[in-house]
Order: sequence, then structure tokens, then C-alpha cells
Amino acid sequence: MDLRDYEKWPATSKSVYESIEIRIPFKPSSILITGMGGSGIVGDVVRDYLGNRLPIHVVKDTIVPDWINDKTLTIAISYSGNTAETMCSALLAHGKGSHVVGITAGGRMLKEFNERGISVITIPSATAPRFGFPQLLYAALAVINKAIGINEEDIEESIAAQEEALRDKLIAADIGNQLIGRVPYIFVDSRVQGVAIRFKNDLNENAKTPAIVAAIPEADHNDIVTLMMNHPVKHILIRAGPNPIIDAVETVFNDFLSKLIKIDLKGNGILAKELYGISLLGVTTLYMAETLGVDPVRTDPIDALKKRMGRLC
Amino acid sequence: MDLRDYEKWPATSKSVYESIEIRIPFKPSSILITGMGGSGIVGDVVRDYLGNRLPIHVVKDTIVPDWINDKTLTIAISYSGNTAETMCSALLAHGKGSHVVGITAGGRMLKEFNERGISVITIPSATAPRFGFPQLLYAALAVINKAIGINEEDIEESIAAQEEALRDKLIAADIGNQLIGRVPYIFVDSRVQGVAIRFKNDLNENAKTPAIVAAIPEADHNDIVTLMMNHPVKHILIRAGPNPIIDAVETVFNDFLSKLIKIDLKGNGILAKELYGISLLGVTTLYMAETLGVDPVRTDPIDALKKRMGRLC
Repeated sequence: MDLRDYEKWPATSKSVYESIEIRIPFKPSSILITGMGGSGIVGDVVRDYLGNRLPIHVVKDTIVPDWINDKTLTIAISYSGNTAETMCSALLAHGKGSHVVGITAGGRMLKEFNERGISVITIPSATAPRFGFPQLLYAALAVINKAIGINEEDIEESIAAQEEALRDKLIAADIGNQLIGRVPYIFVDSRVQGVAIRFKNDLNENAKTPAIVAAIPEADHNDIVTLMMNHPVKHILIRAGPNPIIDAVETVFNDFLSKLIKIDLKGNGILAKELYGISLLGVTTLYMAETLGVDPVRTDPIDALKKRMGRLC
Repeated sequence: MDLRDYEKWPATSKSVYESIEIRIPFKPSSILITGMGGSGIVGDVVRDYLGNRLPIHVVKDTIVPDWINDKTLTIAISYSGNTAETMCSALLAHGKGSHVVGITAGGRMLKEFNERGISVITIPSATAPRFGFPQLLYAALAVINKAIGINEEDIEESIAAQEEALRDKLIAADIGNQLIGRVPYIFVDSRVQGVAIRFKNDLNENAKTPAIVAAIPEADHNDIVTLMMNHPVKHILIRAGPNPIIDAVETVFNDFLSKLIKIDLKGNGILAKELYGISLLGVTTLYMAETLGVDPVRTDPIDALKKRMGRLC
């Protein structure tokens, strides 16, 4: 099985988290995280983990809202450093007085942020931006730790969860086998929806497969009606621990469906559950790519699009 | 063609908007909108329309974040008044000192809000909650107008856009015809993603059909890779006026696909574009239900689920 960088993830997470030295000179009242695709998913994970403590605004676009100000900490993430949308939104945030910190492996972000005196952290490289997820996430978490303080045990547990997921790689392969040729329909506990968003993105990029993300309880009010007819989809339910609403959904699924793929996220805290799920299901998509005979790294339509878009700001 | 309540929408929108008499005794620094399904979509539309002016936090869940406070205006929307999740989140928001306004046709919300002295607006009934969308949206807009002031011309244009969509009902039927038997893959300009979320929900409930929402530019970094293989999906592109990124996406689509369904939203402002798209595509899903021979109002799995869930708080 092709594991790409996954076996390096736990060690990379630890070393990146411990290496960040930065001072955040104020206590932010909100955090804006801007980034696209394999970089932008960091925002979703951080929102699941810390969005209850303070507003975490995730931007996957060229723009930022007018209401951000000097109380907003902006974390701009671009693995390549050349993502047009992220450069635009980060510079707009800077122009509105927000304190911006960049996270990148180089490119235009490193150069231009340095020239303008904007903080920028460089992270180690990976096989492709999405496989550099630990570098990006744990750098962002280290920055947030300096700003508002986070629990060290959550960090440690989340790294152990990655190792656990690697030990479960046969489960990952089995899930992949059941998804081939169907549109994965991912029902997920809303507390850990970052796992499903990342899984969908990995299905798209690694296995060239479309997928639907349906967060529970919202999906109980619309998506679940589609069980009344047959469709070329395969249902998956991602659980994040005891939840009576998810129990009810599971029973209804069992009444209407022949077979449901059920994934129980291991770990105690939200961050550990997210890292377990993201690692396990990332490996699932690599396994699917192998079975389908496609190269997980190639993304031709993105390359064609980037050429057409050029520099946006 | 079965048009359900759509022909009444423009008149209902106007009369509800003009009838709301309420005083909001402070200028909120953020707005939280809580609601599920056909009621919750109001939050998405309002966020597209006003999210640049102040933070609009959309909750489709039983909980609210810890950071909300007495500077937050909460609008709790439940058509039936009995939505378990919305009752829980609204009462939690009230407990945190947020000023809550309920919007409902009756039920538990009307009774309990009155007992607790929480403001509540009653709106006229509809064939099903999702067909009561104008009542819910224009009541919410009227409340927001009292709090922060909104442009009357936007309201008028958005009502005219609904009439325009009704005149385009043959376009709606043609779109429906092309979607039967496939999973609609809805690519949408991120500025109007409420249109795509509502279209997906209407596909789910009215036509019992799953669908994927892919907001551009984020979808350019993941979903678009799936064009490299054949899948049981049908691609739709929803445009909201000139946008060089959408132009680039359209060209890449044309290079990889045999045929793309393209929808140009009519209207000048964001609110009008949203109401045009929501009305047009709502009618599309009713047409699909007719073709598929399913009852657009029946939602058996939701009914089964609600029975199992019961009262959550």
C-alpha cells in the first residue's frame, strides 16, 4: 500500500509544533484562517477544536469581510506560497489592520511577507501540499497557543491518534474497497465535520472521486430523505463518541439501507478524533487510487485552471 | 407543473416584510441565526447578503458557541415551532444573555417564548416548512432592518426576482430533465452559495435526490480533479455575474466535459440573485418530483427520525 508521507506525520507534527518561536503581541478577540484546499482544511479542523472558545472565521476565497480589525489574528496558510486566493485575502486582512502570520514552504508568500514586514513561518516540504497537512496544522496550532494558550495534552493525544490510525491501515483499505465505483455519501457528527471535509477533498484529489458531506443534525432535515430511493451512492457514518441524535440516525439508516459503513473515531478529545479520522481516511483514498490505477499526486484540471487564472492581486 | 406555494411567494414576501413591528433595543455587534433545514436556509441567505457588514454566525445544531453574549442578536427560526435542535440552541443563547427573537408559525416555540418573555413573531402557514421560505426570510430581514438598517431597494428587487423566476419556469423544467438519474454536482460562485445549499436541500426533500455543493474558488482546489474520471454525476455551474475565476472554471469544464448545465442568476444585488436562483431551482425540483412520480411533500425518513429523537431539551 502506498502510504506517501503518512508514516512521517507523527514525528513531523511534534517537531514542527515544538520548533515555532513567535510572539503574538495581543490577545485576539477572533481568529481568521485563510487558505485553500490542502492548506485551507487547517481552518476547518481548528474551528472544530477551538470554535467554542472564540470566533474562528474560515476563509477559502480571495476576499475577507469588512468587519475584521486589529483585534483579529489572521493566519494565512499556503503550502506552495503561491496560492492566488490566499495571497489576496491575506494582504486584504493586513490592509484592514489585522495582525497576519503566514505559514508556507516558500514561494511568493515568503518573499512578499518578508518584504512587507509580515510574520511568516516556513515549514518542511512534502510530496504534495495535502500530504504536508501536519506541518501546516501544527504550525497554526503553535501560533494559536502563543496567542490564547491551548492544552498540551490535546496536542500529545492528537499525535498518538495518528499512530493509531496507521496501525488501522487494513480498516482503511477495507473502507476503500467498499467505496469504489460509488459516490461516497459521508454523514458526520457536526462536532468533527473537518474529518469529513478533508476525507471528501482527499477522495477528490487522490482518488479522483466526488463525495457528499452531510453534517448531522442538519442532514437529518434534508439529506436523509434521499434514502427513499436508490442512488449510485455509498453511505458512511462517522461517529465521534456517544450522541443520542447519531444513535437515532443509525437506526433509521439500518431500517432503510442494506449496509452502512460505520467509522468510530478513536481518541478522547476533538483534536485527537480529527487526526485519527483524517489519517485513517487519507490512507483509504490512497488505497482507492491504487485500486483504480490513478496517480494520487496528479491533479491535471487544477493545473489547467491555475494557468488560466494567473495572478489575482 | 406542480408549483406548490411558489406563485404566492412574491405577495407573501411583501406582506410579511411590511407587517413586522418589533423594536430591537440595541445595535448588535454580531447576529446568530439558528434553524434547521427549510428554516435554517434563511441563515445562509442572510450571511451571503450581509456577512460582509457584521459577523453572521449560522447555527444548524442543538448548541451555540460559548463566546456569544449580550451584544449578539439571535434569530431563532422554526417553521413548525417544534424543531428540537432550534429550541435547544435558542434557549441556550437566551441563557447566555443574547437578545433572542423567534420566528415561527406556532408550536412549542410560540408557547414557551411567550411564557419566558422572549420576543416571537408568528408567520402565515404554508404547504410544508420549505415552501414557507418567504415568510421566514422576510420576517428575519425585517428584524435585521430594525436592528442595523438594510436597503429597501434590495428588498423590492428581490421580490421582483421571484416573479422573474416564475416566468422562467420552462427553463426550470429543462434543467430538471437533465438531472434525472444522476447526482447533481452543483458548482457555485461562493458569493451566492445559499442558492446551491437550498437547491441541494430541495433536491433532497422534494425529489429524494442527493446532490453535491461545491463553492468556487475552493472547489477549484479539490472537486474539479474529479473531472479526470467518469462518474454518475451531472455538473451544474451557477454564476452570479462577471467573475474571472468562474470564467476560468467554465473553460476547464468545457475542455473536460461533454455538457455543462449553466445557470446565470438574474438581478443586480446579491439578495435578488439569491431569490431568483432559489425560486427557479425550487421549481426545478418540483418538476423532477413529478417526473420521478414521487410526492414532494412526503419525507418518511425525517418523520421516523423525529419520532426516535423526541425532545432534546
